[in-house]
Amino acid sequence: MKDTANWQLDSIVTELRRARADWRLQHGRTRELGGRELPSISAVKDIIDALSGALFPMRLGPTDLRQESEDYYVGHTLDAALNALLAQIRLELVYNKRKQINNDADIEQQARGIVLRFASSLPDLRRLLDTDVMAAFHGDPAAVSVDEVLLCYPGILAVIHHRIAHHLYNEGLLLLSRIIAELAHSATGIDIHPGARIGKSFFIDHGTGVVIGETAVIGERVRVYQAVTLGAKRFESDDQGQLLKGQARHPIVENDVVIYAGATILGRITIGEGSTIGGNVWLTRSLPPGSNVTQANIQDQVGNVG
Amino acid sequence: MKDTANWQLDSIVTELRRARADWRLQHGRTRELGGRELPSISAVKDIIDALSGALFPMRLGPTDLRQESEDYYVGHTLDAALNALLAQIRLELVYNKRKQINNDADIEQQARGIVLRFASSLPDLRRLLDTDVMAAFHGDPAAVSVDEVLLCYPGILAVIHHRIAHHLYNEGLLLLSRIIAELAHSATGIDIHPGARIGKSFFIDHGTGVVIGETAVIGERVRVYQAVTLGAKRFESDDQGQLLKGQARHPIVENDVVIYAGATILGRITIGEGSTIGGNVWLTRSLPPGSNVTQANIQDQVGNVG
Amino acid sequence: MKDTANWQLDSIVTELRRARADWRLQHGRTRELGGRELPSISAVKDIIDALSGALFPMRLGPTDLRQESEDYYVGHTLDAALNALLAQIRLELVYNKRKQINNDADIEQQARGIVLRFASSLPDLRRLLDTDVMAAFHGDPAAVSVDEVLLCYPGILAVIHHRIAHHLYNEGLLLLSRIIAELAHSATGIDIHPGARIGKSFFIDHGTGVVIGETAVIGERVRVYQAVTLGAKRFESDDQGQLLKGQARHPIVENDVVIYAGATILGRITIGEGSTIGGNVWLTRSLPPGSNVTQANIQDQVGNVG
Amino acid sequence: MKDTANWQLDSIVTELRRARADWRLQHGRTRELGGRELPSISAVKDIIDALSGALFPMRLGPTDLRQESEDYYVGHTLDAALNALLAQIRLELVYNKRKQINNDADIEQQARGIVLRFASSLPDLRRLLDTDVMAAFHGDPAAVSVDEVLLCYPGILAVIHHRIAHHLYNEGLLLLSRIIAELAHSATGIDIHPGARIGKSFFIDHGTGVVIGETAVIGERVRVYQAVTLGAKRFESDDQGQLLKGQARHPIVENDVVIYAGATILGRITIGEGSTIGGNVWLTRSLPPGSNVTQANIQDQVGNVG
Amino acid sequence: MKDTANWQLDSIVTELRRARADWRLQHGRTRELGGRELPSISAVKDIIDALSGALFPMRLGPTDLRQESEDYYVGHTLDAALNALLAQIRLELVYNKRKQINNDADIEQQARGIVLRFASSLPDLRRLLDTDVMAAFHGDPAAVSVDEVLLCYPGILAVIHHRIAHHLYNEGLLLLSRIIAELAHSATGIDIHPGARIGKSFFIDHGTGVVIGETAVIGERVRVYQAVTLGAKRFESDDQGQLLKGQARHPIVENDVVIYAGATILGRITIGEGSTIGGNVWLTRSLPPGSNVTQANIQDQVGNVG
Amino acid sequence: MKDTANWQLDSIVTELRRARADWRLQHGRTRELGGRELPSISAVKDIIDALSGALFPMRLGPTDLRQESEDYYVGHTLDAALNALLAQIRLELVYNKRKQINNDADIEQQARGIVLRFASSLPDLRRLLDTDVMAAFHGDPAAVSVDEVLLCYPGILAVIHHRIAHHLYNEGLLLLSRIIAELAHSATGIDIHPGARIGKSFFIDHGTGVVIGETAVIGERVRVYQAVTLGAKRFESDDQGQLLKGQARHPIVENDVVIYAGATILGRITIGEGSTIGGNVWLTRSLPPGSNVTQANIQDQVGNVG
Repeated sequence: MKDTANWQLDSIVTELRRARADWRLQHGRTRELGGRELPSISAVKDIIDALSGALFPMRLGPTDLRQESEDYYVGHTLDAALNALLAQIRLELVYNKRKQINNDADIEQQARGIVLRFASSLPDLRRLLDTDVMAAFHGDPAAVSVDEVLLCYPGILAVIHHRIAHHLYNEGLLLLSRIIAELAHSATGIDIHPGARIGKSFFIDHGTGVVIGETAVIGERVRVYQAVTLGAKRFESDDQGQLLKGQARHPIVENDVVIYAGATILGRITIGEGSTIGGNVWLTRSLPPGSNVTQANIQDQVGNVG
Repeated sequence: MKDTANWQLDSIVTELRRARADWRLQHGRTRELGGRELPSISAVKDIIDALSGALFPMRLGPTDLRQESEDYYVGHTLDAALNALLAQIRLELVYNKRKQINNDADIEQQARGIVLRFASSLPDLRRLLDTDVMAAFHGDPAAVSVDEVLLCYPGILAVIHHRIAHHLYNEGLLLLSRIIAELAHSATGIDIHPGARIGKSFFIDHGTGVVIGETAVIGERVRVYQAVTLGAKRFESDDQGQLLKGQARHPIVENDVVIYAGATILGRITIGEGSTIGGNVWLTRSLPPGSNVTQANIQDQVGNVG
Repeated sequence: MKDTANWQLDSIVTELRRARADWRLQHGRTRELGGRELPSISAVKDIIDALSGALFPMRLGPTDLRQESEDYYVGHTLDAALNALLAQIRLELVYNKRKQINNDADIEQQARGIVLRFASSLPDLRRLLDTDVMAAFHGDPAAVSVDEVLLCYPGILAVIHHRIAHHLYNEGLLLLSRIIAELAHSATGIDIHPGARIGKSFFIDHGTGVVIGETAVIGERVRVYQAVTLGAKRFESDDQGQLLKGQARHPIVENDVVIYAGATILGRITIGEGSTIGGNVWLTRSLPPGSNVTQANIQDQVGNVG
Repeated sequence: MKDTANWQLDSIVTELRRARADWRLQHGRTRELGGRELPSISAVKDIIDALSGALFPMRLGPTDLRQESEDYYVGHTLDAALNALLAQIRLELVYNKRKQINNDADIEQQARGIVLRFASSLPDLRRLLDTDVMAAFHGDPAAVSVDEVLLCYPGILAVIHHRIAHHLYNEGLLLLSRIIAELAHSATGIDIHPGARIGKSFFIDHGTGVVIGETAVIGERVRVYQAVTLGAKRFESDDQGQLLKGQARHPIVENDVVIYAGATILGRITIGEGSTIGGNVWLTRSLPPGSNVTQANIQDQVGNVG
Repeated sequence: MKDTANWQLDSIVTELRRARADWRLQHGRTRELGGRELPSISAVKDIIDALSGALFPMRLGPTDLRQESEDYYVGHTLDAALNALLAQIRLELVYNKRKQINNDADIEQQARGIVLRFASSLPDLRRLLDTDVMAAFHGDPAAVSVDEVLLCYPGILAVIHHRIAHHLYNEGLLLLSRIIAELAHSATGIDIHPGARIGKSFFIDHGTGVVIGETAVIGERVRVYQAVTLGAKRFESDDQGQLLKGQARHPIVENDVVIYAGATILGRITIGEGSTIGGNVWLTRSLPPGSNVTQANIQDQVGNVG
Repeated sequence: MKDTANWQLDSIVTELRRARADWRLQHGRTRELGGRELPSISAVKDIIDALSGALFPMRLGPTDLRQESEDYYVGHTLDAALNALLAQIRLELVYNKRKQINNDADIEQQARGIVLRFASSLPDLRRLLDTDVMAAFHGDPAAVSVDEVLLCYPGILAVIHHRIAHHLYNEGLLLLSRIIAELAHSATGIDIHPGARIGKSFFIDHGTGVVIGETAVIGERVRVYQAVTLGAKRFESDDQGQLLKGQARHPIVENDVVIYAGATILGRITIGEGSTIGGNVWLTRSLPPGSNVTQANIQDQVGNVG
């Protein structure tokens, strides 16, 4: 209280400016800067929450919703969410194109086109998510109602985020789709790259520690437990030793596969339809349909596969 | 700015309504709907935060609390939390009974009875949690004070949530208890089903990835590390291939057991008193008291158990 | 609505007071209490968010930031964050010294000294974090820009928290540093004790389930994947069976080591420079530089190391 | 910081309890108390804000509203506002009837009836308010658009509040209607008792200091300026010297009257159609149609009226 | 969106700094500045709201308050409000003494003494306010309950503020007391200087435009209507033409006086007990007890007084 | 709780839509509508609060501001406020030009030009406001410091708003300037039209009920008390009986005039330099310099003026 503290702000601010300047110089960014053109994590979070409510009004919407006003709620909430999404998409499009020649009119048109396509995909998205909800309900003996599934299952929350993120990823909006994926990752411990292609009736139970890579392909009615990894084996490098980006490097999991907790499946291999992968199994080779791999039998089994 | 965007809201709202209608038709829910009668996740979160403050006022209460006003804070906070809890319980009771004949008076009386029993259990709950706090303090060489334990240990946060959730689970409030469990799961990565029965002086260190199933039974002075699973082995199905719900299917862990990180214990087996389970061990058979299982000795050890 | 509920508040408040009194009696705390002198988790969270913005204004600062106002934003945000940090540090210093003789003037001077040193370390902290960002960008084939890394990678968020927490840990502020570490743990599933010493260009990918212990030492350019544990083997106890606190008990990881997902490395062992540890490997002995351990070769490999 | 302050809370709380008990004893309220059953000012404020937006969506609704979503906004906002209003009405009905025998079912039915009638009156209310807006636009040479009138004129804000409050006053909800009137009074300085009956195309300019009493009756196309009082002359008392409540005691102002700033009109007198009352005029007798009273001519004029 | 706006911030910030520097130079404040030591208007607002709730818990407290928890609410709310008040008082004491020699210990002791005296005065304050509430109820024929009076009468809100502000004014806290008075002024249009001394059972009806000066003295059972001024006549100046501050310059109004709307009473005159002052009367001379002044009779009446 | 309420929303929404459609039809607005393009009151309020803090950082800025960080606060706050102002100005420019041909580029350029000019005027604005603060301090014997004046005087708050609003009014932004004026009117009861031209060292004491019209012109060192009106006499109408807008119709008040409470001055008259207008005086003719008008002498005085 007596005398006032003094943090030497001027010198710290100057030093921080120098650190930024050095970094920009090193990375050839000295000319490009005007304003920040990155999406906002908290804005994206609000959008996803609103979309979730609009998709499942009676279960994820406001607690006092009544049937009479369901459509009004859905229409009004969608409208606000889509406008907010438009603003975030604009930011990413400006960001994405800053280094190329570009004009605003184009970005505005592009952004609106994306929102329009996204909006019109929502009814199908809802029907797809319904299959996931039913998969969870039927896949967990502890589940007592589909309402519990929607309110309480982190796997459902992760899948809602993923299916929205995947749509935007396909539109070329990597940042937005990654932000959405990380929101789910932070809330659930389930880390699905928005690039992963996942069929209907997908169920992740418990989920903490699940990692699904960018180029993974998952069929229909697949069930996955906590700490399962669908990852890359080794990364390929170019001549300069830099990692090659964008290669298909994660597993293909066919329909009706079950993968128990802690299993690690690496590389562009295929797990054949209807297979069961036991807990903690470590797998880097493809499996034919109907395989049943456990820690006990893994050496032989894997041998057979080759 | 020029012309205003148009999202074809009417058609999307209509299509979403159809998707909901189809779902309701498929699941025989066309008649039941009036209003949303599901508890609210954010309301439950506020209740748990308030209860935590009332249970540990000087450590989880407001930062400017002084001894003089401790009881006023506790009384006022409890009052608000119990009233809010009453409202959430009403919602779940209405939900739970919608399909059966039921009358409001009954629900109101039931709800108040539950709150009253819960309220009167709080002093014992506090004493029980004190044993958990001491277990954490004594169980982790990095812990320097019990205050640090309460402020910083995710395991303590998970146990506070679990002991509250378990009380409500025993009152038949599955949704509320599951919401509470998932709040802890999301914040800590520790996934304890509210049905699990856990004795005093329980300590989970680090905790990310821990999964404890609905019918697990854990004794006193048990210590558990990150990524430990107390799970089910296989789920039994009925004649139609539907999973059977409500079977005892998770392990019994007796007093004074320690389970190191990554161990997976599956099925209705018993880990005898005073046993130690090493890291990453995979266990599906019972162990006698005093067992000491590690990855190295596991084949023999398990052989002996049989 | 008819009659008002009654929770027997007086008796519960009395019983809770007794539970607290018993606990204080048992732990010899009956005399010390005046007011709560513990840092506040939510205050600390706000401070870290503000510091993150001040360190990376164009990527973690406000969405409408423009270059013209960058320094004003940095200066104003830092000022508020440092003042808030000063208040939290005062609380911990009062807490830390309550049991010894102490006088306020000293605490005020100490607190200001800590803030001043912390503030002046920020430019170096930023340069250090720049190396971590580049390590993430080069270490993940899915990363398309450094901006994506800062916005979306939980590993970066964890490292920002850790480097701040570690500074405060070195100043003797255990509670504050642990709170910061747990904020990152809750958001990312990455659990790094603030005591761990970590060199530049550190990258954690995916991250859920990573645990790094208090006395771990990590070199430069180390890469770590999800569910990796750098833990203690067994805890040593004193004559009374109490765990010994403060012993060096976690691994030393030298420069340019890569540790793949799920690997568990326990005890005060050394992983030699440039080694690669395969997924799910369980390791309790030191490795010479350039080692390459996988599940397949581990028995031999480890044998060789001895 | 040194020692903690102590406010002798216990003794103050006890003394305050005694003061409340004495008051309750004095006013015969010792038995009635259970819970607080009074409407909430801030809840009512939110309801009025929402209703204003629903009535004038493009001008008082959200800033990003577009024509496409107007009806969704109106429906959703109305729904929330009407539900919230229902809750406040319940509180007042319980309050109003506490002293008589009463049962809940009745109150619930009554409350819903009131909301239903209020809801169905909204379209007419909007059309009525449109006449007020046009009156303001035509009545003030400084007004440049009807949009400015709705956004900026305190008189319009006061009239929106009044017309809503008056509807509820007619339903017997005195507390709610008075709270609404005071919200307008506090925001604008215009104090209209909700009992006042006011015809269409009413305009108050500037408005600060305007007071319009409970039994005032105002015709169509009346214009009023700041600091005008339509008040009571003297209050009649009963035999015990208590003021008589509910008597018609305020002026009747007929169609097309203009009352300039500061005029004071007291008692149950009638200002005839088309009259003009000059600034600061003090008037306690009736005036025939077409009168024109100013400070200058008031003695004669009033004489003529007799 | 295309290019980023640029506001020439550096030059404006520099110019504003110069404007501040010039002002400080002109007013001899160049040396004193360290930090801002002025109370905060919004902090004071929160304190008054909390105190109002603690004084009238069942009517101005939280809407869900029940009798069982009344004392807990009062104790907890008071505690928070008194701590917050202590902080504001410290700020003003530091401010007040900056120009003289002063030491912190003293200020802390002084601040706590003021809070302690204020806290212990609250029960009497409540009893005093009860007389004001009854005066309003009996003084307005439109009032139907004391609850309506507390919820809806701006005069009561102004008197609650005034009686708190006056206590602090007497402790020498001019800034705090003036901030409180202006909060009431802004909300009600009633402007009472905190220095005014006002007896019990005071009632202001409608209130907009009421002004009561610093040295006014008002007896018991006084009733005042809107736009009444109890002001100063002319200000006396010193030799340099500066206004003399602190002179008794406002009216003394004795017991049982009624002052109707718009009356202006100026100078250190005395309105004798039981007098009635008519609407719009302009008065600058004292009146004997029992006077009855109206616009009509004022010339004679005033003549009589002389 | 039993059955859910039903408000017939569909029919009310339909009827409200019809009411809006009828209104739009009547006022020829059927074609123009796209989105709402009106400034937002709450956004404007935040802007003014921020500008006030930037203008007087140590008195209206954040409570913990210190001299070291003053410029950072000013720069950062200004930046945010100017960006927010830019957005509001865009909205009004779009609104203003909707009926004429217009293109976006122009509006953007115009908006930025206005903000730039406004920003560069702030240092002069601050110096001008300093003269107002000093005028208040010297003009009120109750004022004890300039800090009290800035924190507590509604007249200062009104003048800060007015000087900002007047700048925007001169740029043709009527809606924004009127919104700002009404924010002050609502908070203080002082109603100054943004068009009024006011010289330096202007002081309004108490202020409730003051009305200053659009074309009023006020000189330097003028002092005004509560309830003073500087208004129009009668409005001139055109041939259709519509009021003529934009005529000079309010008083000119020359330097060093004092106008006491309740005085009403109407029409385009001139109050000569150094005049004093007594309380409640009613004035509709010009006065020569040095006049001294009171209620007592008004007939003669006014007679002399003619």
